[in-house]
Amino acid sequence: MPAQNETKNEIVTAALVIIGNEILSGRTHDKNIPYVAEKLNDVGVRLVEIRVVPDLQDKIVEAVNILRTRCDYVFTTGGIGPTHDDITAESIAAAFDLPCEKHDEAWATLEGYYVSSGREFTPARQKMAMTPRGASLIPNPVSGAPGFVIENVYVMAGVPHIMQAMLDHAAATLKGGAQMMSETILCNHQESEIAEALSAIQDRYPDIDIGSYPHYANGKFTVNVVLRGTDEALLQGAKRDVKQALS
Amino acid sequence: MPAQNETKNEIVTAALVIIGNEILSGRTHDKNIPYVAEKLNDVGVRLVEIRVVPDLQDKIVEAVNILRTRCDYVFTTGGIGPTHDDITAESIAAAFDLPCEKHDEAWATLEGYYVSSGREFTPARQKMAMTPRGASLIPNPVSGAPGFVIENVYVMAGVPHIMQAMLDHAAATLKGGAQMMSETILCNHQESEIAEALSAIQDRYPDIDIGSYPHYANGKFTVNVVLRGTDEALLQGAKRDVKQALS
Repeated sequence: MPAQNETKNEIVTAALVIIGNEILSGRTHDKNIPYVAEKLNDVGVRLVEIRVVPDLQDKIVEAVNILRTRCDYVFTTGGIGPTHDDITAESIAAAFDLPCEKHDEAWATLEGYYVSSGREFTPARQKMAMTPRGASLIPNPVSGAPGFVIENVYVMAGVPHIMQAMLDHAAATLKGGAQMMSETILCNHQESEIAEALSAIQDRYPDIDIGSYPHYANGKFTVNVVLRGTDEALLQGAKRDVKQALS
Repeated sequence: MPAQNETKNEIVTAALVIIGNEILSGRTHDKNIPYVAEKLNDVGVRLVEIRVVPDLQDKIVEAVNILRTRCDYVFTTGGIGPTHDDITAESIAAAFDLPCEKHDEAWATLEGYYVSSGREFTPARQKMAMTPRGASLIPNPVSGAPGFVIENVYVMAGVPHIMQAMLDHAAATLKGGAQMMSETILCNHQESEIAEALSAIQDRYPDIDIGSYPHYANGKFTVNVVLRGTDEALLQGAKRDVKQALS
């Protein structure tokens, strides 16, 4: 069920299910995670888990059914095209124990899209008008074939350009909670040199999430210290303390 | 338990658990998935699931415990550094219900690494010598702090350069099965134009995994048709049929 939070202090969570053998094979490099994470955060929804699953119905059903009860929202990417390996709609229908059937609005949209450009509305293209019963559509301004929403599960394309347009549309409809703000402090120390100071500051600011992210380049380590939290005053206090400790 | 397959026809599977708030926040773009997928495939191990979980012990334990019973191997990245947010070693110990304790070999390695460079072996650095009891080490040729293996779970750094060195070392010890081979056919058709032909070919080659991956750039779609399988003759047969169908 979508979050029905009354206040902006509540934490609203989401999970992302990436459906795609091509990510698991290493062939395609996922480009959707950062966009989804940042767009959701913009509307006060926190991405708390990601799963990449193969194009197999039982794996999709398992991931979606666990995550839709655990999180306020679930987003899926991939597998909504016209080919035989696009099994997301029927898998989501199976997850909800609903029939996967012709969606009249999707059908009309797709028929118009193809006929207006002088192309035939073939059975393969008709497949993209199938959704779980009762789904509402997420428009696809790029290539016609829509995504859809059923309860708290948002089903989107895998192609980044299309996924982004769909998520932009969907994000406007979400009920967000407390927005996570962040501050990043670049630091030329090694992680192990600043670990004790950071740990002490973390103890003083339990509501601020202090992360230490080492990078390695040209034989040298640097560290980004990232502070995240929903309270601006606490965030700035922790930032001041980290800067002081590192100077 | 690691795969003890006797033949090269068996499918040996792995899962990847990416431990990191920084991936979930969108701040850091994962660079490890493609390397892990390809390196494992090189040694006949198939990556079948990926989970990205936050820096929270119960989430790490849950993911590792489900996946280590389901897959032949589990690999984790991230969270083995010296800072307070590096909780992977104690989380993996908790997953196996083992104490997390000083590992003598890791301790000696790290002490030598720091002392030889004139730096102090501080408590923060000593933390990186803690492993679940009975773990064996994965060397870190870059920055001293080792990864470790406990049963079928391989715990590696998150920094790509270090992760790659650790995985290269670990991969040599894995018992792989049938190696997945692939062929890619570029195609300027739209997906929906080739869907029926591909579906018919997929029906003829049930042991070949035929994927259709659309790309969108400059207002145009192109498709990569990717064929994957463990039998070279079948793979080449399917490739020939796809090429013929698309010409």
